[in-house]
Amino acid sequence: MGRWGPDARGPLEQAAVELCLEHGFEQIRVVEIAQRAGFSERTFYRYFPDKPEVLFAGFGFLHGNVVSMVVGAPVTAGPMEAVATAFEQAGAVFRENAVRLRQRQHVIDGHPELQARELSKVATLAAAVAEALRQRGVPDPAAMLAAEAGTLVFRITFRAWIRDAGDQEWPRMFRQTLDAVGAVIVGTPPTPIPVT
Amino acid sequence: MGRWGPDARGPLEQAAVELCLEHGFEQIRVVEIAQRAGFSERTFYRYFPDKPEVLFAGFGFLHGNVVSMVVGAPVTAGPMEAVATAFEQAGAVFRENAVRLRQRQHVIDGHPELQARELSKVATLAAAVAEALRQRGVPDPAAMLAAEAGTLVFRITFRAWIRDAGDQEWPRMFRQTLDAVGAVIVGTPPTPIPVT
Repeated sequence: MGRWGPDARGPLEQAAVELCLEHGFEQIRVVEIAQRAGFSERTFYRYFPDKPEVLFAGFGFLHGNVVSMVVGAPVTAGPMEAVATAFEQAGAVFRENAVRLRQRQHVIDGHPELQARELSKVATLAAAVAEALRQRGVPDPAAMLAAEAGTLVFRITFRAWIRDAGDQEWPRMFRQTLDAVGAVIVGTPPTPIPVT
Repeated sequence: MGRWGPDARGPLEQAAVELCLEHGFEQIRVVEIAQRAGFSERTFYRYFPDKPEVLFAGFGFLHGNVVSMVVGAPVTAGPMEAVATAFEQAGAVFRENAVRLRQRQHVIDGHPELQARELSKVATLAAAVAEALRQRGVPDPAAMLAAEAGTLVFRITFRAWIRDAGDQEWPRMFRQTLDAVGAVIVGTPPTPIPVT
């Protein structure tokens, strides 16, 4: 159960994605998701307040992993480095779940209600990362800026990674996107003139 | 009517914000908003599909202004410069509407449904800015990156500007936030060693 965490959330998300692809998100009922995963409807509601939430079980794990890695980053790491490393490492589980993640994204992209919830989750993650940086003693606005920038880079990288069918390695893709966002903001620096 | 645009949208948003502050967003009805602004319920629905949407009338103007300024930026302007200038200039109307914008944000921040809609609007704006850059011949990923970075800086600046009660000048605040986001991503560059 390692990649899913030690409870019913992962299997329930998997079952929900399968059922969404077969019948559509609106058509399926919570009891059907629970049964497909081998659980009762009551178990479902022990983990998730409503039907859409089951599609964000994996996001919940990601959120927890990113926040604890930011909190636990080496004391020498600056705010952006702590955030970037956390997102790089937290994405290591994406590859083995590539098929399910792509299917899940297909479901989300087809429903404005789910897209809105995804945006809320990402905003909540950015706020939690900023809070984790403050716990490390990083003052604002640096904490908020590094959290927002890192979360934006995560969102852009994830979209591209999904589109590429998960072929590219996540940490490298994340770092390249981070560099690209930095470069587009500060402008391409002039070629350094060699000092002779 | 200049600052609102030549139709009922501005007065309807103003009336909605007032009524929200007096009675709460859930309590008020569309017909009451319309009457407060001196229009019929039918007129309301000619402009807005539902009650929450009236709180985003001003955002709609901003969206249109930003997109047309990006499209119309000088041909010499790079993608980030076109986006940054558009956001700087589009925010010029904020100052004269500072009180209403702050009241409106207070309403939105108190309702998860409205916060979710705000996030969707911002995501839609980022997509439209990227599309405007593509119209200028900017290829992806540069178009998408500049649009996402610019929209993030807009969101951060707007939050800070609202918190500061609109005392600071918008264009300067936007440019400072842009620089700060760039600096946090690329890291503080090492002090250049003077060439002797």
